[in-house]
Amino acid sequence: MENKVLIFGHQNPDTDSITSSIVMENLEKKLGNENVKAVRLGNVNKETKFVLNFLGMEEPELIENIEDGQEVILVDHNENTQSISNLSNAKILKVIDHHTMNFVAPYQLYYRAEPVGCTQTVLYKMYKENDVEIDKNIATLMLSAIASDTLVLKSPTTTDEDRKVVKKLEEISGLDINVFGVDMLKAGTDISDYTPEQVINIDSKLFEQANKKFRIAQVNTADLDSIFKKQAYFEQAINDDIEKENLDFYVFAATDIINSNSKIISLGNDAPVVEKAFGVSIDNNTAMLENIVSRKKQMLPPILDSLK
Amino acid sequence: MENKVLIFGHQNPDTDSITSSIVMENLEKKLGNENVKAVRLGNVNKETKFVLNFLGMEEPELIENIEDGQEVILVDHNENTQSISNLSNAKILKVIDHHTMNFVAPYQLYYRAEPVGCTQTVLYKMYKENDVEIDKNIATLMLSAIASDTLVLKSPTTTDEDRKVVKKLEEISGLDINVFGVDMLKAGTDISDYTPEQVINIDSKLFEQANKKFRIAQVNTADLDSIFKKQAYFEQAINDDIEKENLDFYVFAATDIINSNSKIISLGNDAPVVEKAFGVSIDNNTAMLENIVSRKKQMLPPILDSLK
Repeated sequence: MENKVLIFGHQNPDTDSITSSIVMENLEKKLGNENVKAVRLGNVNKETKFVLNFLGMEEPELIENIEDGQEVILVDHNENTQSISNLSNAKILKVIDHHTMNFVAPYQLYYRAEPVGCTQTVLYKMYKENDVEIDKNIATLMLSAIASDTLVLKSPTTTDEDRKVVKKLEEISGLDINVFGVDMLKAGTDISDYTPEQVINIDSKLFEQANKKFRIAQVNTADLDSIFKKQAYFEQAINDDIEKENLDFYVFAATDIINSNSKIISLGNDAPVVEKAFGVSIDNNTAMLENIVSRKKQMLPPILDSLK
Repeated sequence: MENKVLIFGHQNPDTDSITSSIVMENLEKKLGNENVKAVRLGNVNKETKFVLNFLGMEEPELIENIEDGQEVILVDHNENTQSISNLSNAKILKVIDHHTMNFVAPYQLYYRAEPVGCTQTVLYKMYKENDVEIDKNIATLMLSAIASDTLVLKSPTTTDEDRKVVKKLEEISGLDINVFGVDMLKAGTDISDYTPEQVINIDSKLFEQANKKFRIAQVNTADLDSIFKKQAYFEQAINDDIEKENLDFYVFAATDIINSNSKIISLGNDAPVVEKAFGVSIDNNTAMLENIVSRKKQMLPPILDSLK
């Protein structure tokens, strides 16, 4: 990899992970650090493809592992379990993130995280602070990621800072988040040519907390029924993962981006944890979570509470 | 504590920990967050007293523990073992730091660390980014902490960013770091009225790494001989700590701020680790470490390497 510092987001990259690596590469180069390269740890999903196609931009190169001592910059994640499999071989130079933290480094580094809805909101501030111009393409990448992470500013993860940044980005990009963002989200919900395995892995995160190992996967949809027609296939794919990774449970959430609800499939020995977590009854392995759209703010915390 | 957000540095506070809490309180207030209060976890040392006396400023209030759910901002540290004993009860809102990391938070927060010589270098940038004026008193506090952490820019922990910030701070404060900083360091070396227990606790840090529990304490001096005349007393105090805290070893470093060397006392079952770490022979429990002045950059890393 030509000895470049590699910049990447989490596994099963979403729009924030892909675009933040590109936007961070640009920032580093503008600040004179030419020796950096945005890469990715997995397939680019359709939502992100919509954005890259709109801008005529290439996907970052896929990497599968790194060499000992490889210098890296992490964006949109900080935990080992969500990063490249041999991250412990890397020298992490910087982390730009907006997630909960579980991070150890036996050396000093640049770590910048803020309690906002999207990594790009942090990156926007870093551009401003360093007096680096945000051009139309960069603004569009930033706007897309915020629209994605906040479901067009409707998720409870949205902060006033995100909203303020979106206003500025709409001006620079000439795009309306409620038009472009919704088109992008809809493009992301097209799963017609995906296998069930691919669907559950569009945005699946592994957690090892409270002495349990589990995944919460999420897929956006504008049509819940079409997903649950194929419930048996998804259950097969989920159970395969549970066995392969020795998971205690697996929550697959189909999030209705129009009505802001999520319908879940919960499987595994500890699947009933969701009943206590959300005050619902599991029926045929499924439950409807009203007004719940955010994995980070609305799904993970009650599940962790219930595991205590 | 009137429900205020408490801002504090590490135990056995040094000049950076005390002044950074004051400087961060000022920044928060200037940004409209009136509900914050700088406090401290231990006695103010003579070096820091020199600075506060020079400015006619009060010491922050001492706290010994915090209530469940207390909101806090950590400066100049991030690890549990270096913080208030019941930190796990707190809600950490922000961390401003420049150390190695070992940090877990099951919620989002503001985390800002940079690989520089002093927390105040990070705080200086935060003032600039937020367009908050750095007045003469704040500049003097910042300059003092950088002079302290970098031994007047002579320690290998010093970065170009620290040097750049010092130039600006000299302009604002009207002070020359090589005059004011050296006077401050010398004031800090006066241990004439300290008990041996107090001397070893002036700046002692507990580490739990590589399956070992140990302390590295450091004291600055302009006169190594006067310290080692009392070696037997220091050994007694160190051995008491080893027994009380069940330590595997204890390194006490007297750092000669004029000649940039450190003479150490190494005690405990694993005391010989320093021979391998620094390529020296222990003689009468002591060794001279030539050109070694920085615990973080020059003492801890080789010790950790030798423990592997």
